[in-house]
Amino acid sequence: MKLYQYPTASQLAEIIKRPTKDSADLTATVRAILDDVRERGNQAVIEYEQRFDKAALSSLAVTEQEFAEAELLVSDELKAALQQAHDNIARFHAAQRYAGIEVETVAGVRCWQRSVAIERVGLYVPGGTAPLFSTVLMLATPARIAGCADIVLCTPPRSDGSVHPAILVAARIAGVTKVMKTGGVQAIAAMAYGTESVPKVSKIFGPGNQYVQCAKQLVSLGDVAIDMPAGPSEVAVVADSTASASFIAADLLSQAEHGVDSQVLLVTTSESVYTTIGDELDRQLSALPRCGIATQALDNSRIVLVSDLDAALDIVNRYAPEHLILEIADPHAFAGRVVNSGSIFLGHLTPESAGDYASGTNHTLPTNGYATAYSGVNLDSFCRKITYQELTAEGIRSIGRTVELMAEAEALYAHKNAMTLRINSTQP
Amino acid sequence: MKLYQYPTASQLAEIIKRPTKDSADLTATVRAILDDVRERGNQAVIEYEQRFDKAALSSLAVTEQEFAEAELLVSDELKAALQQAHDNIARFHAAQRYAGIEVETVAGVRCWQRSVAIERVGLYVPGGTAPLFSTVLMLATPARIAGCADIVLCTPPRSDGSVHPAILVAARIAGVTKVMKTGGVQAIAAMAYGTESVPKVSKIFGPGNQYVQCAKQLVSLGDVAIDMPAGPSEVAVVADSTASASFIAADLLSQAEHGVDSQVLLVTTSESVYTTIGDELDRQLSALPRCGIATQALDNSRIVLVSDLDAALDIVNRYAPEHLILEIADPHAFAGRVVNSGSIFLGHLTPESAGDYASGTNHTLPTNGYATAYSGVNLDSFCRKITYQELTAEGIRSIGRTVELMAEAEALYAHKNAMTLRINSTQP
Repeated sequence: MKLYQYPTASQLAEIIKRPTKDSADLTATVRAILDDVRERGNQAVIEYEQRFDKAALSSLAVTEQEFAEAELLVSDELKAALQQAHDNIARFHAAQRYAGIEVETVAGVRCWQRSVAIERVGLYVPGGTAPLFSTVLMLATPARIAGCADIVLCTPPRSDGSVHPAILVAARIAGVTKVMKTGGVQAIAAMAYGTESVPKVSKIFGPGNQYVQCAKQLVSLGDVAIDMPAGPSEVAVVADSTASASFIAADLLSQAEHGVDSQVLLVTTSESVYTTIGDELDRQLSALPRCGIATQALDNSRIVLVSDLDAALDIVNRYAPEHLILEIADPHAFAGRVVNSGSIFLGHLTPESAGDYASGTNHTLPTNGYATAYSGVNLDSFCRKITYQELTAEGIRSIGRTVELMAEAEALYAHKNAMTLRINSTQP
Repeated sequence: MKLYQYPTASQLAEIIKRPTKDSADLTATVRAILDDVRERGNQAVIEYEQRFDKAALSSLAVTEQEFAEAELLVSDELKAALQQAHDNIARFHAAQRYAGIEVETVAGVRCWQRSVAIERVGLYVPGGTAPLFSTVLMLATPARIAGCADIVLCTPPRSDGSVHPAILVAARIAGVTKVMKTGGVQAIAAMAYGTESVPKVSKIFGPGNQYVQCAKQLVSLGDVAIDMPAGPSEVAVVADSTASASFIAADLLSQAEHGVDSQVLLVTTSESVYTTIGDELDRQLSALPRCGIATQALDNSRIVLVSDLDAALDIVNRYAPEHLILEIADPHAFAGRVVNSGSIFLGHLTPESAGDYASGTNHTLPTNGYATAYSGVNLDSFCRKITYQELTAEGIRSIGRTVELMAEAEALYAHKNAMTLRINSTQP
């Protein structure tokens, strides 16, 4: 832990600094796999699955039989939990539906805006030791509510060629159209370019390792949109003297256990919290299975004592945390003044894990300070807003001359003429 | 012009194809300028302005005196036009304000979403023969309505070191905070990294040549967000037998005059339109100052005769045009079935130039088929949606067990513990 008491301006700059990115350039490696899949399609994907996931596949799509088997392998208790989480996510995202607007900007000029779902979206869910079925719910549920026609999910198979049953159950609950057994760069390539069995999508969502992130960024330069750039996950906790050291420690550790590069920041106005949190972290840490990872992440954590909540707010807004937990007496007043954060957790009874799984908000959020410019995934992420306009003869009289003047001043005479012809045709 | 009558499937694929990108790799050139500006700040920008714009600058910011002089140089008639265009843009974008939502997803779990302006945005407005003051209005007006605190506009100076007065007048009308005299890659670098006098922004908007686009894409890989990727501007016109050949030709030409790479597509169900449009284009073309450019763009234009509007709709949705003009008897029925387009112009009296300047909709729109995944610039482009959640003791009882189960199944025990502690603390 790095400890700061009433930090100076230069210490503040250090506190809000993100780790510099690993300078290893993966571009050439990733580009080669992308190009190979673009050229050779399924065959290339199958070969990379053999090489990277040690899985011998004859086809990529998860079959109906595999879905049926998965239902038998997941406990009823976990299924019920998935269903409740899904229902909450569905409620919150359904409330984000955009009714559209219609405005007569000036007499005879009607403009409107309509939200339309992206037709085909691709979701990426990483493999690894633990199956990230919560991410399946977080991405597929809003995609279905938005009305996306094709919701393709790619996830790496295990070495026996199967997909973790909880992922398949979550995919069915959330309304995924197709689950494909492929991961890594080859999965991103398959969704960006399409193969014989993976449909080409218009936008790719989801987390992944540095190869997956690099692949998403490369394909986003021209072939397909992506949800957002990604860095290590992070939490900022603001605590005052009403906060419980054990709650704070548990919240910091839930971030720290994600990975050794997880970012953990505690800003407190309480000397008591500042002095006791270290011991509390040690105590809880020893009980964690992922103790090794969390310990490394905590080495880079920052614990900051500040004089008041205004100073805490300044740090938070400059840091722009992915997650912000407000364990303070009046979290609402503070939350209303936060301008840079992905998702905010108010009060002592709202741990980050509530939002990670089941409160209903989305857990795909901007990291690395991207909260200054990006939203987390929400219903809009799966839609586009198309604009419309319609002029009547009165509308031509309202803005016709303005269009002519501006077009002429921009030296675009065909633009002007298109309006002049309408003006002439509508003159009495 | 390329003519197609009742195209076959393979011809359809050709019709909706975009030009392949110029393979010239600008990355090294652009990267060098970006790095230089990042390192040397203002001094590097001033040197590039001397080299590329032949302008000898001692400082970058447009002064109050220059703004005052600009007011005297723009005619009252054009000022009134700019003001009307601004007012319509303001009305349409103000109507897009997001009231926010609040949902109790399950008993004791309250989730909400609030839209917050991006604090600092950068707008790029290209130079060239004609001043694109309309783009100033289209970008700065929604930025101001969103509530962005800093709205920085960069535009290349003329060789005498001045900025075109119409740009400055438009910037004042729309509420730009600062206008900086710099263009090209050095302008994008200055906004992405900040210099002594150009503030670092969180998101960069605006059109530009291939160097500017390449620079925007490179900085978007980690340093700053951008509005969207860009390709050549394009229009699709759908016309039936009620359409006027002279209106159609004028609309196609307003696209063609933008540049030699402009994309022009006419899909018609009318044999008469199909056979007469060539002559009408030739007639209008000869009167245009930018006749040379338009002629080249028209060489690549596609004129397609289809049997009915369903066939036209299929082409439109697969092409995903930036602009779509519906010169047909019932444009509303057709418009309701379009799923891929940036902005739609309904009926015979709604030329694209209405929306380019003054209807109120935004003219910064997705090209190159990006309309399948991207919206045009709108109020949302200048905001982020932050999510919030708050649990009561009842909320803990509602979802506590679900969070524990899911965290355990994902092998994230600190996540589980953060909830377990809250469950224990709220038990009677």
